[in-house]
Amino acid sequence: MVNVGIYGASGYTGQELLRLLLRHPEVRIAALTSRRYAGMQVSDVYPVFFGLTGLSFMDASPAEVAQVCDVVFLALPHGVSMQIAGEFLNAGKKVIDLSADFRLRDVRIYEQWYREHTAKTIIKEAVYGIPELYGNVVSRARLIANPGCYPTSAILGLAPLVAEKWIDTASIIVDSKSGVSGAGREPQVGTLFCEVDEGFRAYKVGQHRHTPEMEQELGCLADHDIRISFAPHLLPVSRGILSTMYATLHKDVTAADMNDLYRSFYEGKPFVRICREGTLPNISSVRGSNYCDIGVTVDGRTKRAVIVSAIDNLIKGASGQAIQNMNLMCGFDEVAGLQMIPLFP
Amino acid sequence: MVNVGIYGASGYTGQELLRLLLRHPEVRIAALTSRRYAGMQVSDVYPVFFGLTGLSFMDASPAEVAQVCDVVFLALPHGVSMQIAGEFLNAGKKVIDLSADFRLRDVRIYEQWYREHTAKTIIKEAVYGIPELYGNVVSRARLIANPGCYPTSAILGLAPLVAEKWIDTASIIVDSKSGVSGAGREPQVGTLFCEVDEGFRAYKVGQHRHTPEMEQELGCLADHDIRISFAPHLLPVSRGILSTMYATLHKDVTAADMNDLYRSFYEGKPFVRICREGTLPNISSVRGSNYCDIGVTVDGRTKRAVIVSAIDNLIKGASGQAIQNMNLMCGFDEVAGLQMIPLFP
Amino acid sequence: MVNVGIYGASGYTGQELLRLLLRHPEVRIAALTSRRYAGMQVSDVYPVFFGLTGLSFMDASPAEVAQVCDVVFLALPHGVSMQIAGEFLNAGKKVIDLSADFRLRDVRIYEQWYREHTAKTIIKEAVYGIPELYGNVVSRARLIANPGCYPTSAILGLAPLVAEKWIDTASIIVDSKSGVSGAGREPQVGTLFCEVDEGFRAYKVGQHRHTPEMEQELGCLADHDIRISFAPHLLPVSRGILSTMYATLHKDVTAADMNDLYRSFYEGKPFVRICREGTLPNISSVRGSNYCDIGVTVDGRTKRAVIVSAIDNLIKGASGQAIQNMNLMCGFDEVAGLQMIPLFP
Amino acid sequence: MVNVGIYGASGYTGQELLRLLLRHPEVRIAALTSRRYAGMQVSDVYPVFFGLTGLSFMDASPAEVAQVCDVVFLALPHGVSMQIAGEFLNAGKKVIDLSADFRLRDVRIYEQWYREHTAKTIIKEAVYGIPELYGNVVSRARLIANPGCYPTSAILGLAPLVAEKWIDTASIIVDSKSGVSGAGREPQVGTLFCEVDEGFRAYKVGQHRHTPEMEQELGCLADHDIRISFAPHLLPVSRGILSTMYATLHKDVTAADMNDLYRSFYEGKPFVRICREGTLPNISSVRGSNYCDIGVTVDGRTKRAVIVSAIDNLIKGASGQAIQNMNLMCGFDEVAGLQMIPLFP
Repeated sequence: MVNVGIYGASGYTGQELLRLLLRHPEVRIAALTSRRYAGMQVSDVYPVFFGLTGLSFMDASPAEVAQVCDVVFLALPHGVSMQIAGEFLNAGKKVIDLSADFRLRDVRIYEQWYREHTAKTIIKEAVYGIPELYGNVVSRARLIANPGCYPTSAILGLAPLVAEKWIDTASIIVDSKSGVSGAGREPQVGTLFCEVDEGFRAYKVGQHRHTPEMEQELGCLADHDIRISFAPHLLPVSRGILSTMYATLHKDVTAADMNDLYRSFYEGKPFVRICREGTLPNISSVRGSNYCDIGVTVDGRTKRAVIVSAIDNLIKGASGQAIQNMNLMCGFDEVAGLQMIPLFP
Repeated sequence: MVNVGIYGASGYTGQELLRLLLRHPEVRIAALTSRRYAGMQVSDVYPVFFGLTGLSFMDASPAEVAQVCDVVFLALPHGVSMQIAGEFLNAGKKVIDLSADFRLRDVRIYEQWYREHTAKTIIKEAVYGIPELYGNVVSRARLIANPGCYPTSAILGLAPLVAEKWIDTASIIVDSKSGVSGAGREPQVGTLFCEVDEGFRAYKVGQHRHTPEMEQELGCLADHDIRISFAPHLLPVSRGILSTMYATLHKDVTAADMNDLYRSFYEGKPFVRICREGTLPNISSVRGSNYCDIGVTVDGRTKRAVIVSAIDNLIKGASGQAIQNMNLMCGFDEVAGLQMIPLFP
Repeated sequence: MVNVGIYGASGYTGQELLRLLLRHPEVRIAALTSRRYAGMQVSDVYPVFFGLTGLSFMDASPAEVAQVCDVVFLALPHGVSMQIAGEFLNAGKKVIDLSADFRLRDVRIYEQWYREHTAKTIIKEAVYGIPELYGNVVSRARLIANPGCYPTSAILGLAPLVAEKWIDTASIIVDSKSGVSGAGREPQVGTLFCEVDEGFRAYKVGQHRHTPEMEQELGCLADHDIRISFAPHLLPVSRGILSTMYATLHKDVTAADMNDLYRSFYEGKPFVRICREGTLPNISSVRGSNYCDIGVTVDGRTKRAVIVSAIDNLIKGASGQAIQNMNLMCGFDEVAGLQMIPLFP
Repeated sequence: MVNVGIYGASGYTGQELLRLLLRHPEVRIAALTSRRYAGMQVSDVYPVFFGLTGLSFMDASPAEVAQVCDVVFLALPHGVSMQIAGEFLNAGKKVIDLSADFRLRDVRIYEQWYREHTAKTIIKEAVYGIPELYGNVVSRARLIANPGCYPTSAILGLAPLVAEKWIDTASIIVDSKSGVSGAGREPQVGTLFCEVDEGFRAYKVGQHRHTPEMEQELGCLADHDIRISFAPHLLPVSRGILSTMYATLHKDVTAADMNDLYRSFYEGKPFVRICREGTLPNISSVRGSNYCDIGVTVDGRTKRAVIVSAIDNLIKGASGQAIQNMNLMCGFDEVAGLQMIPLFP
């Protein structure tokens, strides 16, 4: 049993952490902070929790939260996490940061895509928290940089091909489509129902901040620098990311070969499901779960691999993966609290 | 641990039973039948289950299923359940029927709204399975008539007012709005995406078969015959029923009085949540859960009570309630396998 | 050809006026005002207009707009219209106000439901702009109080029954369901995509400001005061209002009688369509059009009339009706610029 | 004024033709055929038309239809059009075929992707009906092969780059996302509301029949054979296709250069709108209209052009384009009957 705090708990990511942690067999929730909603009951801000918890949001300092928690999740905007993560680490707490602040190992790249970094010395402590790739290191980490939602879908989708050097890494294209919850709960015209409903659009093509995160991790697997083209799109759904990835194959392989590669690469990983040959994933088949479903095809006419991956952006793309990391850091079963079957329809 | 069978398992109700029962701590699934999909893996028909179960659909006779099961859920069309329920009862099995075949205690009313009844002698064995009203009787039942989705929302919403005789029962109007999953998975023009999306309509106004079920149960609570006006509508969502109910108050009561009445009526019932005064339920706050949320208001200008209830039609309106009934019949904790927190957004 | 101005043109109602007026054969758009977007091209705020108009929003005083326009539409919040309508009238312009400021003839009722009224003397000039009821008066009006969206659907739906005294007016219940565009384009948590999507809820039951408007007009038709119960709901669609209305019948009538009544009451009215007996309207069958579809049923078991009406809230419920009023005021064909066939699917 | 027939008029494409043609200033609808709905009023099958037309579907032979029509639209499944197109041509009628039967000039390619062709001799008569590329030829055509929905979006999106040889044509990737109406109104599990809602998936990756159509037209513009990778996806919306297209640039160009190229290539084309630099199209900005919106970007880090195009699949992707072709064939204004402003929200 660990005492857990969620710092910045009032966004969609924070409420999803809460929803999952309330049913986690090894967790007691000791603190939820939110400046905006301080003093309000969680169930007044999110009626799903009505009758299920008496917890309220508080406006507490890191020191106050550290006193009552063993593990802290930071569900804060980029730039804010870096200001307080150190304090928790100094107090000997485990920290799982859901912002981008510790994801990029090269601080220059961070500063080029985001802003000035004010906690440079901690960056090297951080472990990029994709358990399927870094499970052992995650287990020993004190600070987890929890991956971005898009990068989770892209890295899991491409890792086997890149690691095994089956593709020309200069040819990688990632075309991703995300549900709206990824944009958060802050009111803005662009995420109003009427603006999104029955619509679909691309945005920040070639300019999205998740690009360097994908390049770092794929480059790491390839053992050389990689540049990719990344185009995110906004789907008129609440949850889900589906990424379609294209890369030119170095060699003549069949879909069956690809399927074998992926199955063996992810053998024993409880949250990656490789679709049966001939079938492709759907975001509605992972909604509400921590699964990443991956379908692999070969476009024989053009010698390209086309990979499709699907996750629930709030779970495997954020809060579920954060809990998966916590499970490993705390020595719990990797799947503890995460065995939800997807909700369909 | 009980061995459970689902007879007619390939519709949305059947797959929801399966989804919930696979995570139920006291259940082993022993048989799933489907004539159409016999021989196919469940995960080929519903990809959510991929990797989570190796179960296949079979085309088995009631006798064959009875041999391996202690409890059988019948998720069959009206008119089919009545043909096989008896065989399971004769074999000493507990039966939970999700069709309408055993819901109406007066066979003439059944035959007037549905069709000829061919298992009249069993009807009197059946217990109408709303545990909040009939918990003790449910515990001792061998045959449960699991309530319809609309009636569940309406009966729970009106029971306190009717039982306490606060309203003129001749004035009851039930205006219900349901998600599309209630219409099943059989392909038809009316439930195609393009026909439902961005649409909203009423149907079978004053003629829906769930009307006599509401009248029977409310009449029972009132101790006299009741006739209501019932108008169902189709919402462009997959899950959820919200019913808005109107009735003229006999006496001068405030919203606070109403709230007190409802809280005390449902005290100790784990799946009914009475909203805080001044707030009303939303189907998205119960989705994926077994809760029925109820909000009560008084329209002081017209002396009417206006009650709003919300359920997930596939869970509290069907499969979840069926499992709640099973829990009571089998002596399990009433909430076993049903403690999902609603999925939002 | 008239010169038209839209004062407060940047909301959904304003853009819908613009969309329709740009294709109106008798109209030239002379001014569009918006404080927030002053100086911006319309097509930067609403990309649908890209390439179709070079118009920009301006921040202009009523006097400036009056100089270039013959007719002015006020698409402003309640309380703002009353401050400037007089200036346009004094300048001899025709005014169509889409706010509630001039809809209630009894200023005490306005002040009870809204706020202090600061242009009381003009109220008596205003004509409540439902052309199906007040066509002749509209033709001679200088100031139109364009009806609210919910009242349009309810008044058209109930008018024949009330006018012909077929129902007990004390028994009227209006259960309305509206798309989200009615809530406007101002960012707020409650209208974010993720909050509305897959959800459905009632709000302001018995307390919505459109109640007195319905009561005024129905009372007028009945020739006595009327109090109704009105419960609005929020649908997860962008456009459309469907109202389901219940009232106890004074006499024994069939659905066919009702149908005849409605057909004859609305004979010659180009935008009211009475559904064939046995069929009911759907908001997706009026979307993008100025039609109000009405379906009538009799619930013989309870002696109630149940009426269902459907409109596009932005067109017949706001901008389309405003243009219909303009057409009459200016002596144009009533249907000019309004003959769009609904867009389905 | 021409007399027009729609052969196979009961699908979504047929009803959209009807909707547009009923408001076309130069058209009289002389015949609508549908075997399934023969004898039924159009408004019974599509309630949008209620009160707007008295037309009924008939089951008529090509000869009977030819007798009363000057122009015939064939809205039939692939394989059926080829059986009757000749009869209309022999009767001297203009034919616009919305199926794939006459789109591929090389019959071997048709037979490889579709089925045996039984009207080979007519193929050479057919003009591929993208007026932006083939306007003059369309004007003189007797038989139009109306383009597929996906090819329309992809060909218009890539034509300038291919024609001007700015890109490596071997590098072209087309990632398309379509609304559900493209799948037609035939009931099937895959297009039920509950299966599509809140979902998103890729299908037929590298195997979709629209691939050779894109390759034919782009190859024609390039003057050499082209092979592309094409991955279609299903969006949970009724209308709209958005295609995101990737290709490696031969030369150093800026987004501004690209924008200039596109503007000049499509100068004078009334239905192509090139988005302002820095903005990208949204399907909700073209819905209900015949526009194709195109946004162009350069991913400088990878030297790729990324093009995004958006159309309404039922209009510019089918029925609207068919009417645009008819306008040219009949000497009408190219935009006649097609000047609808998109419907938003």
